[in-house]
Amino acid sequence: MHFASDNWAGAHPAIADNLARRNGGFVKANGGSDFDLQVEQTFRDIFETDVAVHYVGTGTAANALGLSAVARPGGVVLCHSEAHIRVDECGAPEFFAAGTRLESVDGELGRFDAASLETAIGLIEDGGLNAGQVQAVSVSQLTEAGTAYDLDTIGAIADVAHGHGVPLHMDGARFANAVVALGCTPAEMSWKRGVDIVSFGGTKNGCWCAEAVLVFNPDHGRQMDYLRKRAGHIASKARFVSAQFEAYFADGLWLEMAAHANRMGARVAGIIAARNRFRLAWQPQGNEVFAVGPKEAVDALAEKGAQFSHWQPPRAERHLVGEDEAMIRLVASFATTDADVAALDVALAG
Amino acid sequence: MHFASDNWAGAHPAIADNLARRNGGFVKANGGSDFDLQVEQTFRDIFETDVAVHYVGTGTAANALGLSAVARPGGVVLCHSEAHIRVDECGAPEFFAAGTRLESVDGELGRFDAASLETAIGLIEDGGLNAGQVQAVSVSQLTEAGTAYDLDTIGAIADVAHGHGVPLHMDGARFANAVVALGCTPAEMSWKRGVDIVSFGGTKNGCWCAEAVLVFNPDHGRQMDYLRKRAGHIASKARFVSAQFEAYFADGLWLEMAAHANRMGARVAGIIAARNRFRLAWQPQGNEVFAVGPKEAVDALAEKGAQFSHWQPPRAERHLVGEDEAMIRLVASFATTDADVAALDVALAG
Amino acid sequence: MHFASDNWAGAHPAIADNLARRNGGFVKANGGSDFDLQVEQTFRDIFETDVAVHYVGTGTAANALGLSAVARPGGVVLCHSEAHIRVDECGAPEFFAAGTRLESVDGELGRFDAASLETAIGLIEDGGLNAGQVQAVSVSQLTEAGTAYDLDTIGAIADVAHGHGVPLHMDGARFANAVVALGCTPAEMSWKRGVDIVSFGGTKNGCWCAEAVLVFNPDHGRQMDYLRKRAGHIASKARFVSAQFEAYFADGLWLEMAAHANRMGARVAGIIAARNRFRLAWQPQGNEVFAVGPKEAVDALAEKGAQFSHWQPPRAERHLVGEDEAMIRLVASFATTDADVAALDVALAG
Amino acid sequence: MHFASDNWAGAHPAIADNLARRNGGFVKANGGSDFDLQVEQTFRDIFETDVAVHYVGTGTAANALGLSAVARPGGVVLCHSEAHIRVDECGAPEFFAAGTRLESVDGELGRFDAASLETAIGLIEDGGLNAGQVQAVSVSQLTEAGTAYDLDTIGAIADVAHGHGVPLHMDGARFANAVVALGCTPAEMSWKRGVDIVSFGGTKNGCWCAEAVLVFNPDHGRQMDYLRKRAGHIASKARFVSAQFEAYFADGLWLEMAAHANRMGARVAGIIAARNRFRLAWQPQGNEVFAVGPKEAVDALAEKGAQFSHWQPPRAERHLVGEDEAMIRLVASFATTDADVAALDVALAG
Repeated sequence: MHFASDNWAGAHPAIADNLARRNGGFVKANGGSDFDLQVEQTFRDIFETDVAVHYVGTGTAANALGLSAVARPGGVVLCHSEAHIRVDECGAPEFFAAGTRLESVDGELGRFDAASLETAIGLIEDGGLNAGQVQAVSVSQLTEAGTAYDLDTIGAIADVAHGHGVPLHMDGARFANAVVALGCTPAEMSWKRGVDIVSFGGTKNGCWCAEAVLVFNPDHGRQMDYLRKRAGHIASKARFVSAQFEAYFADGLWLEMAAHANRMGARVAGIIAARNRFRLAWQPQGNEVFAVGPKEAVDALAEKGAQFSHWQPPRAERHLVGEDEAMIRLVASFATTDADVAALDVALAG
Repeated sequence: MHFASDNWAGAHPAIADNLARRNGGFVKANGGSDFDLQVEQTFRDIFETDVAVHYVGTGTAANALGLSAVARPGGVVLCHSEAHIRVDECGAPEFFAAGTRLESVDGELGRFDAASLETAIGLIEDGGLNAGQVQAVSVSQLTEAGTAYDLDTIGAIADVAHGHGVPLHMDGARFANAVVALGCTPAEMSWKRGVDIVSFGGTKNGCWCAEAVLVFNPDHGRQMDYLRKRAGHIASKARFVSAQFEAYFADGLWLEMAAHANRMGARVAGIIAARNRFRLAWQPQGNEVFAVGPKEAVDALAEKGAQFSHWQPPRAERHLVGEDEAMIRLVASFATTDADVAALDVALAG
Repeated sequence: MHFASDNWAGAHPAIADNLARRNGGFVKANGGSDFDLQVEQTFRDIFETDVAVHYVGTGTAANALGLSAVARPGGVVLCHSEAHIRVDECGAPEFFAAGTRLESVDGELGRFDAASLETAIGLIEDGGLNAGQVQAVSVSQLTEAGTAYDLDTIGAIADVAHGHGVPLHMDGARFANAVVALGCTPAEMSWKRGVDIVSFGGTKNGCWCAEAVLVFNPDHGRQMDYLRKRAGHIASKARFVSAQFEAYFADGLWLEMAAHANRMGARVAGIIAARNRFRLAWQPQGNEVFAVGPKEAVDALAEKGAQFSHWQPPRAERHLVGEDEAMIRLVASFATTDADVAALDVALAG
Repeated sequence: MHFASDNWAGAHPAIADNLARRNGGFVKANGGSDFDLQVEQTFRDIFETDVAVHYVGTGTAANALGLSAVARPGGVVLCHSEAHIRVDECGAPEFFAAGTRLESVDGELGRFDAASLETAIGLIEDGGLNAGQVQAVSVSQLTEAGTAYDLDTIGAIADVAHGHGVPLHMDGARFANAVVALGCTPAEMSWKRGVDIVSFGGTKNGCWCAEAVLVFNPDHGRQMDYLRKRAGHIASKARFVSAQFEAYFADGLWLEMAAHANRMGARVAGIIAARNRFRLAWQPQGNEVFAVGPKEAVDALAEKGAQFSHWQPPRAERHLVGEDEAMIRLVASFATTDADVAALDVALAG
């Protein structure tokens, strides 16, 4: 019963195989080989535009480097109060820009809206020099609550950001799951709605270690290679990333894996709703399921061998958890099996 | 004729195979799984001591994080004037500590000695607050000139560093090549001679992407996990690094690959010495060969399809290059073939 | 009617005179002269302990340097959500430590309590590596709401901080006003209640430019001189700061000035309460008065020549401001005159 | 015999008096008052152009902030190997840009020439991403050897910098002494010869604490206020700086003080040349005199009560100092008296 997180799985066999296939021979180091350029072209095909692709080592690096590319002294990035960049990256975005401040915007289920953003930006701009200057807005898609922003909200948020002269960044650690959840194209969920920079994650969705910062506006990307180099995020054998992405995109594997993960997530949600030990905290949209139940039921589930996370309820959702209750998170992945889902069902039935 | 650099090769097949073998099933993310711990134990066996092992994404990250672990405000790291950390890492060591200064110590063939180091440290300490404070000493092994420090010199340099209360760091991007060149053990080339922190490189010697900061003194490593995390250098699927190192160390593969690379380097050096187009700039000790020849011979060699680097002669060795001459570097690797060496011989014969 | 801020005044004549008096002759630069040491001794007399005194250029520098002295990678400083360090220093504390994160603790009237702090620290510690590590706790005294923490609350907050192994910092930009307000000694409001580092402000209370970081625990101050030097905060003619502080402390001038400012603040509060244009937002404890009134009354008051600040109501006090109302802040200082107070009374009467 | 440094003196009486004169009344804090603007206008008059004036706390801050205003990731500033910014500011320029690297350009007597600069820049640009990117060129005027760049050399250096797309910064801690030494105008020694940013020092030349970053190209200064604020270098009572500069410039006081200091320096040099205990290391151009003599003569001079600095001979001038000899530095200032010079003469005669 492996529902701890989507990075507990290994790589999809097709991706592992492609690494072996691309292993032979000598290739220009540090990126920029013909093979690397060919995979970059695939990104452009998939995103239907002339996007710049910058590989980095981790999702945290993608977020921190993407945001530092538009850094300003005294810069403030507005993001959800529970955003991964704000509370789960050990100060990486602050560190990479030597002091970026991540200011919270509140909202339910991991999302904020354009009006809340407008208010939050206003507070900074009214503060003059003291409050620093707005640097960027960042959304997570999927959010930390496993929900998705709908396209209109993304567009409205982008309008606010652009109205204040700053770019919109998207933490796309689960970009594929969100695209599948919304049934839209990658372009529709990004630049067509005003997203300027995407942290495009492959690792959680079936790669070994494949993350990229996608930059749609060339102005934002001019310093990116220097930023990556001085951060130790230019892999010398870059083709090992290209080989993963090549297989990731081939024949739509990436969407297939995300669809599987989302389907498995929905089945987990269905089981939880059907069994009476836990209740769904809210309806999942992707591969992450949040549930609430008695603390003793949480312990019992763990004793039965289920792997999941104890979850600190977001501030806006604390009211959903009763006094003797706790919140848990179960995550499905490309590798989640029917057997694991069935075992969970049994464990919750008992 | 692939002699551009040792990171133009892919991964050794045994390492690629092991990645596939370790792909199945679910494993705790972010390191610390049983498998990760088992591979860490292998490091301890090989180094014959209780070393702490911290994976990072690149050699640049290993150097910068290793040095930032002992950072001080106004800190100065003393290193060779041609050290990779000083001139080839785009300011990474400076960036990771928000301002470390890398001060040059001069010396021939990529090496400085204990006496030069003592003088250089004295200049800083005499400068009081203005000059900052000594933070660490760093040596490269192999050096940027492809030479190796002998064990006594390492020990003498360590004594100077420790006498001033600072640790000795070793940039071991080519650690294996140096161990083979010196015919010593990993322990003898590191902690037994006073080295406190090693950037242990696997990538250039047959891995895809496997680097680690090795910390022998627990005091130096206390903040390392936070440093790695905030730098985006904790790979979530850490087993993909462990799997590489597992195969790397199994049955002495790492030393076998380095020995092959060094042997091939020696054969390249022999060919250059035997043919009259170029002369050896100096005797190589590992897998890197530096040669000097007429500029037109350099062009001719490139036209014949040889891949190598045009090399900026180090300051101390500029006198070796005549007016119409240039310096080149040829690097052998685990993957260098007899055919490539033979082709080089033909190209230089013509 | 000068109530804009306490730094719109110049220096107290006694302080200006002392600068002139200490102007003659040659004195060792960069601090450490006999005269500097003598003034440092005065600090120790006043604080009744062996405190280390580090002059810096501004209150922002004092806060940022004091907090960076205890910096850790991924470090988190807990402070009130409206703390000056968090929202009014343009990211200085984040910058000086290359990435400190300032996490909000909520509370009314600019203060949080020990229980809220305990909860907030718990959230970080439960988050493991991702959430970073607690670095320090910081309180402002006076707070941003012009209120004062009572001594027991300071002690309780210090206990929580120390229980988690981190120091307590106090932003004492208005330290003198707080000491007078509480009727306690400097020692009682600092180290006797567990405060480890104080940003001791003289500028707002009658100096030209005199701020110091006071460090009670030698462990926290070991790197301070290097931190100040690399931040450009060691004034070469340090005696110009010493001369200010000498006069500041002589014959209790500093407390006299603060007492005057507090009294004038109380009179302003009395006038506001007595006149019916505005109401006191809350009872002031020092020299800052916050009032709420109709937006048209705010405009009218400005038109009559009164200088004050339009004030963004703190989140916890937004309910105090009605729809067509606004909050303003009036600040008294050592230089506030009876004439100005009388003029304000007339302006509010009209 | 006060020749230790020009910052051992206090402030010129006219400057001290003006501080008192400008003390009364209330003035807008943080700069930007009518009075501040009026003094800024004086800078523009004196520099005959529309320069932006940014006060900061110290010369180190001026240099570090001026250079960080044009920071780039992996940025390299080229400066003389003995430049104050490189060896005497405790890593401030590196810190303020979170990692700027200061690369040495060699040259005699504290100066490099355009050809050496061109070579040094070439090495960086040829190094690609690894070597980082050129960020700025910096010269000191007076240099660390007390010499002055002539105007043509400044112009030639500026041409090289601009030819590579980067600005020229001038560390003008002793700007006034250099202007007097060259007999030129401030404009001729700065923007008319291509200087883009000047650290304009008033402290060493008779102020208490008055330094400014002067920015001639508005593009370079856009972020300066945010940079200063987050570094704690915006003095709240900014008029105390304006008041100093007002008096500094009034009736040419600044040039008069510098002329006095230079004259006194020349007299000190004359005495040293006339007496046979020491010889001039080289001919001084401003207020700093470097001399070489037997170590016992150095001790004897100190015993007679002379205050001066033991000086580490610059690398390029080490050959000037014999085995049992040492180098010393004597500095004259606006406050140097005839009596002190006469006493020195006696001390050297004995």
